[in-house]
Amino acid sequence: MPNSNIQLDDNGRLRHFLSIEGLDQAILTEILDTAGSFTSVADRTIKKVPILRGKTVANLFFEASTRTRSTFELAEQRLSADILSLNVDTSATVKGESLLDTLQNLEAMQIDMFVIRHQDSGSAHFFAQHVRPGVSVLNAGDGQHEHPTQAMLDMYTIRHYKRDFSGLRVAIVGDILHSRVARSQIHALNLLNTAEVRVIAPRTLMPVAVESLGVSIYDDLEKGLADVDVVIMLRLQRERMRGALLPSEKEYFRKFGLSQERLQRASPDAIVMHPGPANRGVEIESSVMDGKQSVILQQVSFGISVRMAVMSMIVGQSGLSSGPQPGGDA
Amino acid sequence: MPNSNIQLDDNGRLRHFLSIEGLDQAILTEILDTAGSFTSVADRTIKKVPILRGKTVANLFFEASTRTRSTFELAEQRLSADILSLNVDTSATVKGESLLDTLQNLEAMQIDMFVIRHQDSGSAHFFAQHVRPGVSVLNAGDGQHEHPTQAMLDMYTIRHYKRDFSGLRVAIVGDILHSRVARSQIHALNLLNTAEVRVIAPRTLMPVAVESLGVSIYDDLEKGLADVDVVIMLRLQRERMRGALLPSEKEYFRKFGLSQERLQRASPDAIVMHPGPANRGVEIESSVMDGKQSVILQQVSFGISVRMAVMSMIVGQSGLSSGPQPGGDA
Amino acid sequence: MPNSNIQLDDNGRLRHFLSIEGLDQAILTEILDTAGSFTSVADRTIKKVPILRGKTVANLFFEASTRTRSTFELAEQRLSADILSLNVDTSATVKGESLLDTLQNLEAMQIDMFVIRHQDSGSAHFFAQHVRPGVSVLNAGDGQHEHPTQAMLDMYTIRHYKRDFSGLRVAIVGDILHSRVARSQIHALNLLNTAEVRVIAPRTLMPVAVESLGVSIYDDLEKGLADVDVVIMLRLQRERMRGALLPSEKEYFRKFGLSQERLQRASPDAIVMHPGPANRGVEIESSVMDGKQSVILQQVSFGISVRMAVMSMIVGQSGLSSGPQPGGDA
Repeated sequence: MPNSNIQLDDNGRLRHFLSIEGLDQAILTEILDTAGSFTSVADRTIKKVPILRGKTVANLFFEASTRTRSTFELAEQRLSADILSLNVDTSATVKGESLLDTLQNLEAMQIDMFVIRHQDSGSAHFFAQHVRPGVSVLNAGDGQHEHPTQAMLDMYTIRHYKRDFSGLRVAIVGDILHSRVARSQIHALNLLNTAEVRVIAPRTLMPVAVESLGVSIYDDLEKGLADVDVVIMLRLQRERMRGALLPSEKEYFRKFGLSQERLQRASPDAIVMHPGPANRGVEIESSVMDGKQSVILQQVSFGISVRMAVMSMIVGQSGLSSGPQPGGDA
Repeated sequence: MPNSNIQLDDNGRLRHFLSIEGLDQAILTEILDTAGSFTSVADRTIKKVPILRGKTVANLFFEASTRTRSTFELAEQRLSADILSLNVDTSATVKGESLLDTLQNLEAMQIDMFVIRHQDSGSAHFFAQHVRPGVSVLNAGDGQHEHPTQAMLDMYTIRHYKRDFSGLRVAIVGDILHSRVARSQIHALNLLNTAEVRVIAPRTLMPVAVESLGVSIYDDLEKGLADVDVVIMLRLQRERMRGALLPSEKEYFRKFGLSQERLQRASPDAIVMHPGPANRGVEIESSVMDGKQSVILQQVSFGISVRMAVMSMIVGQSGLSSGPQPGGDA
Repeated sequence: MPNSNIQLDDNGRLRHFLSIEGLDQAILTEILDTAGSFTSVADRTIKKVPILRGKTVANLFFEASTRTRSTFELAEQRLSADILSLNVDTSATVKGESLLDTLQNLEAMQIDMFVIRHQDSGSAHFFAQHVRPGVSVLNAGDGQHEHPTQAMLDMYTIRHYKRDFSGLRVAIVGDILHSRVARSQIHALNLLNTAEVRVIAPRTLMPVAVESLGVSIYDDLEKGLADVDVVIMLRLQRERMRGALLPSEKEYFRKFGLSQERLQRASPDAIVMHPGPANRGVEIESSVMDGKQSVILQQVSFGISVRMAVMSMIVGQSGLSSGPQPGGDA
């Protein structure tokens, strides 16, 4: 499988982070364990380690983002990297330079790591295929393909609250068809040996042959939620409404929105997750989002640790164990 | 008064900095004294101290700003903070996320301090009411309410040139009605026991019952300037002209513009201030702005020290006395 | 010559960097030598030195730029500067503040160095004439006047591959008339005693009296390329087409585009350069740009070292020799 090769170096260690597909359980577990050591960094008074000191990270966001971009930038600062964040709309692409030329020019600036979000599926792989030895690429979301750091922060959140994947029932609810987040989550949950992964969606938003990914399929929310331990709601892209795939927001909420009442179907200690930004009252009721089972804001916090973990593994340092003592950074 | 409570912790120390109203003379004096220690930082070869090292400050500017935003960013860098500056127009609010959701998501990223400028009066208080313990909010201007760091840099400037407030006559000239700067200045001048605070404005730009704030009222510039020690000119928002509150720029200058000739009415050693950006020839004559009584650029310089002072007090360090030696930072 | 004075201090050392015109061979050589010491910085694991630690650099780009702006920002980070990058479109100039007021306000923020790109020829000199003692200005491109750091990175590239200028034939091809890059290159090549500098352009894109700059003139590409050691292609601004100075892109390529076939006319080990961004198929054939004689991406890399060199010379430190040891920075 080409994915597995390009993401790992000859010693099987992480070089790029492009997709969950193509990685194995050991790597995923190492990411989660490493992130754990960085979570304590976030709680320290001084939130800073020198793992990327003197390294340069370029953030290339061709799509707008607050959450993902901000957490990447904070992760990079906390690892002491030099940071180049490009507003791609006003960059050289305006003057008609091709994406590959832009990449090669940035690479010539001795960038060590690219974080790229792009509207085209496969764009992160394209970058990874063209960078020089020693340069790494992280996928911050490519089209409808994958969003692997989001999936790993979701896995971190699940493990934090539920410890072990082997006994868990996890439901992913919403626009499975167009969601790069869902694709990455399904791969990750299966690699981590989750007992059952359910996808719940209207038929118009369900991919063809989705069962081949190793999931159970439901088009009825209440049945699908029965006894699950984790509920992951997806954001409903409002433009789907215009595309005639969906009748109306109100109708969508009536059939697939997560209400307090429906959440009763799940296990009593089920957690509720959402990658954000959520549409309150469309895919999720406000009271659920702010309720005691919601771990949506914790996901955001863990996102910084997970991104620090992936970047530190790529430069060859597994978190704090091989780093300096707290407060002892330059 | 609710203001006084939310801005201070249980020990009466500064936690948020939202408005001058609700604070007392002791806190204001501590800010000025602390800023004094940072002014020498600016003159040192190395302009850097580690007081905010490992802390993260988020700058949220919902209104355009050069001066205030730049001086906050420089103050944060000189305190060694990690910085997240959000271009709010292109952020998640585009996708329809509410302001509170945006706040909570940022807070989940372990932001230690928010600097917020917003077009709605009360927005900084709203943020302060909703952040978690340990997180602080600084108001960089909210609607027509307050702009407290601007007022404190103005107080610093006055004290720098005039030493003591108790014998001073201070005139504030211009659009008092719509000015958050004027509101903050009036509160600060009164708390610092200024002998007399005059407000000078056309009747259409004077708030109702402004005398209740403890000021003398003038609608004649020449009478109002008589024997004052400090003249603070306010920026005339050109959109007031369209709103029919004012006849024309030319007419405004004829009646309320500060010319060299009119400045003769003030004390011979009076200083001239302006929060910027000034409209030359509208509220102030160019030759006055560039003249020897003008301290307008000094205000900008002092603004960095004052913002460093407020942030360092909030994290519990009163400037350099409790910090490391010059050059000894990491 | 006024240029020579304003750029140097009383001891003849670099204070501003505004134009190649007005400097001498000794200064240019010092820049190249200093840049050499920073090239090794780029290859080190830790790419960071504390030469600008505690200094503040403001980047003012009134024209869009990726390459120049990014390499300046990276150079500043690698020198450990505090950085203020202003998006000038959304800054105070929106509110009608004059350029000089903007400059003075920024200067009041204790900016140590301004990097300015502006559409008006002479703007960098204007800034330099108005800043206070101790503040420096670097020209990152002013109108159709000069782009001196670009010229110096080009000189660095030539010296890197060809060692000595005295035996070299260098051809500059394209829109000489409008190119600030070409003007700076011609001055630099002549100061460094290049054996022959040729300019090759259609007559409509050739400045009047260009021969007074000390160049040979060609309006035939094939004749002009004969036996040259260095070919510098200039970017063709597409808007020239609309201005009726040129017939069409296709016609331009047919007469002045650099193809593999035409490159045969040059010396067999000639190098091909381009300041970027290039228009593939307009002024240069893709296969030439990606070919083995192209050093276009190396130019970008060297650009960082050259900018680090100029900034470090301005603050009085000639590169690493007087700096700390590798890795020993704070």
